[in-house]
Amino acid sequence: MGKGRLEAFSDGVIAIIITIMVLELKVPHGAAFNDLLPLLPVLGSYVLSFIYVGIYWNNHHHMLHIVQQISGGALWANLHLLFWLSLIPFVTAWMGENHFQAAPVAAYGVILLMCAVAYSILARVLTRHHPENRALAEAIGIDRKGWLSIGFYIAGIALSTPWPLAGFAMYVIVALIWLAPDRRIERRIVQ
Amino acid sequence: MGKGRLEAFSDGVIAIIITIMVLELKVPHGAAFNDLLPLLPVLGSYVLSFIYVGIYWNNHHHMLHIVQQISGGALWANLHLLFWLSLIPFVTAWMGENHFQAAPVAAYGVILLMCAVAYSILARVLTRHHPENRALAEAIGIDRKGWLSIGFYIAGIALSTPWPLAGFAMYVIVALIWLAPDRRIERRIVQ
Amino acid sequence: MGKGRLEAFSDGVIAIIITIMVLELKVPHGAAFNDLLPLLPVLGSYVLSFIYVGIYWNNHHHMLHIVQQISGGALWANLHLLFWLSLIPFVTAWMGENHFQAAPVAAYGVILLMCAVAYSILARVLTRHHPENRALAEAIGIDRKGWLSIGFYIAGIALSTPWPLAGFAMYVIVALIWLAPDRRIERRIVQ
Amino acid sequence: MGKGRLEAFSDGVIAIIITIMVLELKVPHGAAFNDLLPLLPVLGSYVLSFIYVGIYWNNHHHMLHIVQQISGGALWANLHLLFWLSLIPFVTAWMGENHFQAAPVAAYGVILLMCAVAYSILARVLTRHHPENRALAEAIGIDRKGWLSIGFYIAGIALSTPWPLAGFAMYVIVALIWLAPDRRIERRIVQ
Repeated sequence: MGKGRLEAFSDGVIAIIITIMVLELKVPHGAAFNDLLPLLPVLGSYVLSFIYVGIYWNNHHHMLHIVQQISGGALWANLHLLFWLSLIPFVTAWMGENHFQAAPVAAYGVILLMCAVAYSILARVLTRHHPENRALAEAIGIDRKGWLSIGFYIAGIALSTPWPLAGFAMYVIVALIWLAPDRRIERRIVQ
Repeated sequence: MGKGRLEAFSDGVIAIIITIMVLELKVPHGAAFNDLLPLLPVLGSYVLSFIYVGIYWNNHHHMLHIVQQISGGALWANLHLLFWLSLIPFVTAWMGENHFQAAPVAAYGVILLMCAVAYSILARVLTRHHPENRALAEAIGIDRKGWLSIGFYIAGIALSTPWPLAGFAMYVIVALIWLAPDRRIERRIVQ
Repeated sequence: MGKGRLEAFSDGVIAIIITIMVLELKVPHGAAFNDLLPLLPVLGSYVLSFIYVGIYWNNHHHMLHIVQQISGGALWANLHLLFWLSLIPFVTAWMGENHFQAAPVAAYGVILLMCAVAYSILARVLTRHHPENRALAEAIGIDRKGWLSIGFYIAGIALSTPWPLAGFAMYVIVALIWLAPDRRIERRIVQ
Repeated sequence: MGKGRLEAFSDGVIAIIITIMVLELKVPHGAAFNDLLPLLPVLGSYVLSFIYVGIYWNNHHHMLHIVQQISGGALWANLHLLFWLSLIPFVTAWMGENHFQAAPVAAYGVILLMCAVAYSILARVLTRHHPENRALAEAIGIDRKGWLSIGFYIAGIALSTPWPLAGFAMYVIVALIWLAPDRRIERRIVQ
C-alpha cells in the first residue's frame, strides 16, 4: 500500500483540526476593543495549540518522507495519533475559557502527552522493519527530543495543580525546543 | 474517468466527518475534573465512531486500490456511501448525549447498517465488470465479514429497545472484527 | 498554470460544503424516536442539497477533465462558482427549519439559479479559446440541460410564493434530470 | 523537502477558512424575506473576506509555483501566514454583526495587515537563496502592490475610528487592485 493517500488523509484531518480551533474564538457581542480582552486567554491557548499542531504536521511530514511502505498496523497507529490530535481543540478551548486554571492545564498536558506517546508508537511501527531508519531517527535526535518532551509534559501535569502557569510554561518550553531552528541550539538544550 | 479525484474528494469528506464529531464534545463551563465526567458517554461514542470511520476509510482505500476505472454509477454509489457516513456524527452525538438510551442506540445501528449496505452496493458496482476483483474480494473474506456485520447490526438494533447496552455491544463487536489484525483470528470469528 | 491545485482546492471547498450541511441537523434533547420527527424537513432539504452539491462536483470534475490550461479569469470564475455553492448550506437550513415556507423555498431557488449561472460562466471562460471543447459540450447536451435547469429554477422561484411545495418540486425535477443515468432518457426529457 | 504536501496542506487550511466563514451567516428564525435583512452586513463582510482569501490562495499558488525547494524556515513562514489567515473568519463575523462600527473595522484591517506582512515574510524566505525569483517578483510588480496594500491597510485602520466606512472602503480598494485583470490597469494604479 502506497503512502500517498495516507498523507492526503492525514493532511486533511490536521488541516481541519488546526482550523476549527479558531471557532472557539466566539465573536463578542459588543463592538469595542475592550470586548476583545476576555478573549486574550483563548487566543493565547489557540496560538500555542496552532504551533503544536504545526509541529506535528511538520514532523509527520518528515517521518513519512523516509518510509516507503505503509503496513496495516502503521495505518492504525496513524489513526491513533490523529485521534489524540483531534482532542487538542477541546482542551485548548477548555484551558483558554477558564483562564489557565489547574484542571484544564493538566488536561491539556495529558492530551499533549498522549499525542507524544501516539507519535512515538507510530515511529516505532514505521521503523520496525527498517533498522536503518531507526538509526537515522536517533542520529537527528528525534528520540531524545521525544523523551525530553514526555518528561516536560509529565512535569507540566504535576505542576498544574499547585502552579497552573508553571505547568503551562512547561508546554511552551517543549514547543520552543521543537521550533528551535538552529541545530546547535537544539543540541545544547537536548544533551 | 480516473480515480484520483474521487479518492481525493472521498478523503476530504471522510476527514471532515471524522473531525467534526469532536465538536460535539462541548467545552464544560466549570474548570474542575468533575466537569468532564458528564462528557464520558459522549467521548465513548466518539471513540467508537472514530474507529468506524477509520475502518471505512481504510477499506475504501483498499477497494479503490484494486479498481482502475470509475463509471458514473460508481461515482454516485460512492456519494451514496458518503451520505450515510455523514450522518454518523449526528447519531454519535445523539447516542452520547443521551447516555446510550434505547432509541439513539437503535438509530446508531440503523446508520451503521445503511453505511454497510451502501458500501456493499459500491463494491458490487465497482466489481460488476471485473469478475476477477469479485473473486479476490471473496478470497480475502470481505464479503463474509460484510454479511456478518449486517447480521450484528440488525441484532444490535433489535436488542437496543430491551437492552440498549447489549445493542451497543453488538456494534463494538463488529468494530473489533474489522480491527482484528491477525488473519487467523479473523477466520475463526468469521467462519 | 496547471489545473491540479485548482482541482484540489475546489475538491476541498466542495467536500467541506457537502459535510457542514449536516451540522444543521441539531441533535434533539429528547431520546425518543418522536424527537427525530421535527428534523425530517431538515433531513429532506439536506438530502436534496447533498445531491445537488454531488452533481456540481461530478460536473465540475468532468468539465476540468477536458481542459488543459487554466487562465487567471477561469480561476476567478471558479471562485465565483464556489462562492454561490458555499451559500447552499445556509438556504438548505433556512428551508428545512421553516418546513418549506414560501420565502425560504424561493431563496433556495435563487441560490441554485446563481450556481447555475456561475457554472455557465465558468464553462464559457474555460472554452472561450477552445471552440472544439465548446462543440463537445454541446454534443453531450450540457448546454441544453443547463438552460433547461435555469428555466426550472425560475419557475420554482415564481411558484414558491403561491405554492411552495410546487416550487420545491421544480428543484427536485432538475436534480432528477442531472441524475438520470440513461442517455436516452436524458434526451427525451431535454429535447 | 518537496513542496507537494505543503501545497496540499495550505490548500486544505485555506479551503476550510473560506468555507467556515459562511457558518457565521446564522439561519434566521423567521421565514420572511425581511428576516434576511439583518444578515446583509454579515453577507457584505463575507463577500469581501471570500475575495481576500481567494486572492491569497491565488497568489500563494503562483508564488509556490516558481520555487522548487522548501526549507524548514519557509515551512514555518507558511504556517505563520496560515495563522493570520485563520483569524479572518473571526474579524469578518465581528465586523459584519456590528454593522461596520469603528473597532471591528480597525481590527479587520489589523488582521489584513498582519496577513500582508506574513505573506511578505514568506516571499522573502522563499526567495532568499534565489535572487532570480526576487527579480521576477519585482518585475511583475508583486512587491509594489504589496507595499501599496500595506499603506492602504494602515490608512484604513487610521480612518476607521472617525469614519468606519471610509476605513472599510480602503480594504475594498486593495481587493480591487489585486483583482484587476488588466495588466495595464494594474500598472496605472500601482505606479
